[in-house]
Amino acid sequence: MKHLLDKLNDTKLDNRIRLGIMSMLMVNDWVDFGTFKEMLGLTDGNLASHMKVLEGEGYVELRKQFVGRKPQTSYTATVAGRQAFNDHLAALEALLKGD
Amino acid sequence: MKHLLDKLNDTKLDNRIRLGIMSMLMVNDWVDFGTFKEMLGLTDGNLASHMKVLEGEGYVELRKQFVGRKPQTSYTATVAGRQAFNDHLAALEALLKGD
Repeated sequence: MKHLLDKLNDTKLDNRIRLGIMSMLMVNDWVDFGTFKEMLGLTDGNLASHMKVLEGEGYVELRKQFVGRKPQTSYTATVAGRQAFNDHLAALEALLKGD
Repeated sequence: MKHLLDKLNDTKLDNRIRLGIMSMLMVNDWVDFGTFKEMLGLTDGNLASHMKVLEGEGYVELRKQFVGRKPQTSYTATVAGRQAFNDHLAALEALLKGD
């Protein structure tokens, strides 16, 4: 069971907010910063710090574009991000079965 | 999605070690302190602090008995503990689906 706990820690998804962000990106190609903020009920600073972690791990990529005159930042999951999410789920499922 | 994050926080099981402890207690009536330590790879102090949280929430009950001349503390999940575990799982599953 210890290896499962280590795995959950290694993926950096052992945080409900980052897990929520990645969940949203598994079912939506691109999600913009404002949508995350609203869906997850976070401040700019809190969301930005979690996004920095996910970017640092190479789990998400971002694009910046203008919508009218307002800049908008959107995110997408990378292949590595999808793999980490799936690995995390597998470890979680094994843990929940008491393996 | 925010209510799911709140729920995951409320149950106090948004911690991989406590989730591991409760997983073990869902499939075993009684588990002793030493078995948790070994399975989860924890120090006495770390395990004890997580057990205190679970006791405080009313999720586990303990019994102390002597095995030969050695005192042994074992734990079992309460009805409230089982309910919290199931609630946590339901919220987690919903989150993972990107609800």
